Amino acid sequence: MIEKRNFDELQTSFYNQPLMPYLGAKLAFIKDGKANIELDFDKKITQHHGLFHGGVIGTIADNSAGFAAMTLMPKDREPLTIEFKINFLNIANGEKIISEAVILNYGKTIFHGESKVFSIKGDKKKLAATALVTIKATRRVKEIFT
Amino acid sequence: MIEKRNFDELQTSFYNQPLMPYLGAKLAFIKDGKANIELDFDKKITQHHGLFHGGVIGTIADNSAGFAAMTLMPKDREPLTIEFKINFLNIANGEKIISEAVILNYGKTIFHGESKVFSIKGDKKKLAATALVTIKATRRVKEIFT
Amino acid sequence: MIEKRNFDELQTSFYNQPLMPYLGAKLAFIKDGKANIELDFDKKITQHHGLFHGGVIGTIADNSAGFAAMTLMPKDREPLTIEFKINFLNIANGEKIISEAVILNYGKTIFHGESKVFSIKGDKKKLAATALVTIKATRRVKEIFT
Amino acid sequence: MIEKRNFDELQTSFYNQPLMPYLGAKLAFIKDGKANIELDFDKKITQHHGLFHGGVIGTIADNSAGFAAMTLMPKDREPLTIEFKINFLNIANGEKIISEAVILNYGKTIFHGESKVFSIKGDKKKLAATALVTIKATRRVKEIFT
Repeated sequence: MIEKRNFDELQTSFYNQPLMPYLGAKLAFIKDGKANIELDFDKKITQHHGLFHGGVIGTIADNSAGFAAMTLMPKDREPLTIEFKINFLNIANGEKIISEAVILNYGKTIFHGESKVFSIKGDKKKLAATALVTIKATRRVKEIFT
Repeated sequence: MIEKRNFDELQTSFYNQPLMPYLGAKLAFIKDGKANIELDFDKKITQHHGLFHGGVIGTIADNSAGFAAMTLMPKDREPLTIEFKINFLNIANGEKIISEAVILNYGKTIFHGESKVFSIKGDKKKLAATALVTIKATRRVKEIFT
Repeated sequence: MIEKRNFDELQTSFYNQPLMPYLGAKLAFIKDGKANIELDFDKKITQHHGLFHGGVIGTIADNSAGFAAMTLMPKDREPLTIEFKINFLNIANGEKIISEAVILNYGKTIFHGESKVFSIKGDKKKLAATALVTIKATRRVKEIFT
Repeated sequence: MIEKRNFDELQTSFYNQPLMPYLGAKLAFIKDGKANIELDFDKKITQHHGLFHGGVIGTIADNSAGFAAMTLMPKDREPLTIEFKINFLNIANGEKIISEAVILNYGKTIFHGESKVFSIKGDKKKLAATALVTIKATRRVKEIFT
């Protein structure tokens, strides 16, 4: 049987990325091929009109798909984004944004993720961006550091 | 004759994005459909192995293409990224990264940008990522805020 | 009031593309921001293992999004694909494939489409590919042919 | 030492795809991580204005990258496109189009290709599209057919 990471290990992996707390991102949900990342509004991460910066939207779209993939991998593998693509559908002018990722299909090596990023203002939830993310399961030492 | 932004106006626009100084990004070059963004290594913007985070690489790939496009637009228009796609070719383990963007083609509304992100260590410059970015020239008030 | 194309005009536009009947593609459904294109298996459009060729899958993914967009445009505009991206999730080994496209969001100029391509065998329908398509509404004469 | 395919084997693989001769595509060049596919104009493969259809442009962009990758793989592996993305920069109104692909980087499993598609009219060669293609080296029997 393949041993996978438990909830605590997934949480730890997420916050081990210094960029995530630096941006203010939180892992809001993670289970069985799905992961959500939330990010509260903060002027520091905006573009010139005071909206969430597209780079930040792309960052959580990519990362939520990576963590959705991680839930499905054996413990000795970790996700590496091969590529991603994101379409910006609406301005992200909410109080927070949330990226909801799901793995559409996967094999031993390749995982296909889809992330939908919503802008949230009060009780309104608007689709701000949609992304496709291709992830590879790597053995850390052997494949990345040599 | 179409009046375009001068160097100072382009610089000002860049630093008007709070995210850019927050990440440590600098506009290193901008002219005639080209723009380079540089980013020194800082632990705060890394992933869990201490490498430049993919989200940050995507951010400067996107933004450098947007600013390359801005050099070609009339002053009453501004660039809005419609979508971008990035392939991660190599780990970004350098002392700094630089995204070099060029506009491949453009019309009145749509600009196609290509960004190559390099990881730099001493005198070595390695291609870390390549991106395609589609940008729209918008009239700020009318199209974005209504 | 904006006058849009009716069902017959949309059908005519589709079959005015010589490639579509040449590949065997049929416009199976079109209405209100949605369009489906179907393609029966034929050895002529396969790759070397006798499966639907990826190029053909991409073609109907792109085209179904373009026609979904066309339903929402005024009659004096026509869709032009600016770019598309497709992920191949599963081999397409069915008796037919169908691309189901929907417009996720749109303004006056830019339309964001999402296409899901399914491989169908008997009563089984398997997701074979997913695509994001960016479409521009152009005025034919002025923008394309000058 | 890794045994790779020779020129004749690469040519044979190309024409073993029924779609390629059906569209009229020819493998014009293939060597050391590069491959070019040419396609003469034919009304059958056009869109409604009599230009090369975008689906066909995408098909040769994808396929040229796949064959560029195949030159670098051991003989017991074959290229499978995981995903591709293409930007359409200019209308393809030439007498022929040619897709020139190069592998930007690769490991044992993943190959990153870049394809530039040109429209050719007399002695003029115009960039019509640019694509990024991610390819996986698969073992045919084990990974595709089980």
